[in-house]
Amino acid sequence: MKKAEEVSVIPIPFPTEIRPGDSLAEKLLAAMRFHNLSLKQHDVVVVKHKIVSKSEGQLVDLATITPSPASRVWARRYKLDARVVELAVAQSARIVRRKRGILITQTRHGFVCANSGVDVSNVDGGTHALLLPRDPDRSAARLRSALKRSLGISVAVIITDSFGRPWREGLSEVAIGVAGFSPLRDYRGQRDSHGYPLHASIDAVADELACAAGLVCGKLDRVPAAIIRGFLYHSGRGSAGELIRPSRHDLFR
Amino acid sequence: MKKAEEVSVIPIPFPTEIRPGDSLAEKLLAAMRFHNLSLKQHDVVVVKHKIVSKSEGQLVDLATITPSPASRVWARRYKLDARVVELAVAQSARIVRRKRGILITQTRHGFVCANSGVDVSNVDGGTHALLLPRDPDRSAARLRSALKRSLGISVAVIITDSFGRPWREGLSEVAIGVAGFSPLRDYRGQRDSHGYPLHASIDAVADELACAAGLVCGKLDRVPAAIIRGFLYHSGRGSAGELIRPSRHDLFR
Repeated sequence: MKKAEEVSVIPIPFPTEIRPGDSLAEKLLAAMRFHNLSLKQHDVVVVKHKIVSKSEGQLVDLATITPSPASRVWARRYKLDARVVELAVAQSARIVRRKRGILITQTRHGFVCANSGVDVSNVDGGTHALLLPRDPDRSAARLRSALKRSLGISVAVIITDSFGRPWREGLSEVAIGVAGFSPLRDYRGQRDSHGYPLHASIDAVADELACAAGLVCGKLDRVPAAIIRGFLYHSGRGSAGELIRPSRHDLFR
Repeated sequence: MKKAEEVSVIPIPFPTEIRPGDSLAEKLLAAMRFHNLSLKQHDVVVVKHKIVSKSEGQLVDLATITPSPASRVWARRYKLDARVVELAVAQSARIVRRKRGILITQTRHGFVCANSGVDVSNVDGGTHALLLPRDPDRSAARLRSALKRSLGISVAVIITDSFGRPWREGLSEVAIGVAGFSPLRDYRGQRDSHGYPLHASIDAVADELACAAGLVCGKLDRVPAAIIRGFLYHSGRGSAGELIRPSRHDLFR
């Protein structure tokens, strides 16, 4: 029997905060040097979107936001910050649900999540809100290229966020940007060890990698990135858009 | 800065198939001996539900199932096995969606998933269907106790299945049974490094652990279990029921 491989999830704590204009690749490489960590060919580099958005300057000064009357009414009713509500609505392509103080939207990228991914925690104490990266696949590809230039090796890159899920409690990590690999693994057409064909068997490997990285990237520690080593992915072009179910296939719309 | 810990995900391939009546703990210990693997205090043992259900005899001979006329019509229309459809309906507490050949139900345990978790792949080539364990938390607790008796150490146990998700393509692993730890990690009331209070911050750690194990438990390999080492969980009683969102809190019903 072929020996299955162990997978390692290695945290990359950042010794300093990321600021707008910082090079994400340089900060990541500096953090790895600081901790005597190195990257190997075929590693997966998982990065929380917050440091991507910060480096790209996707920050909005909440003092510049004038909430609409509707946002104000809603925010007052549920004790929310009306400026954050306004921003979440402005960042959405579509409102999916608005109920009991929770606003679920579809973002311009196509992601369905709370508040269009607009976040005020782990930013700067409540003055600014952080938006999702404009084009997370492109951010991932840029980081991948920079790492290849610096180190001469090819890695896969995932940019993550924490999303809620219908029916299940708790947030879990998802891939919102990928580069260098296929985020889905398709078993259809293959057969199990009994010769039975596998039908509904497409695995969201990018989301599973995101979750694995989430185990070492706690919310309260400054660990915004991780290396996953030993996972055999399918190299190639990939987009987090492949993880978004087209509305015509979605049973829940 | 405190050094964050690396997390390892160690596959446990099984040299032999599990059969009804087999002791899951004995089979797991035998597989670990076969591969020179050992368990350590505070490891997480992740087990795919299929071997749990098999050992518990949760198999149904499809020849004994007489589909209702409704199941026959539905199955013919979408080229499905009417006996599996019938079994999925019989195993459900509630039909959530029935659309385009896909049947989403809520199981007696409360899980929302396709076909009530009834499965025919990786069973015996299409003669029998496999049901979810009757009480996956109890199965997890039983395995945890048996490992404690045999090895004298305390581990956390997770029993997993692959579920689809609304809005996102691909299956991902979820915890359907847990023992020895809290499946959710609650950050509410804590503050980020800028002093900003964390609001919507409950992480589904059991599902993230399930996904991490999924990276080494491929569908086509005989790797039905894994050890996760280095993850600091909150010991204590826990139930996968905590991961089920009560219907009154679910925005999507």
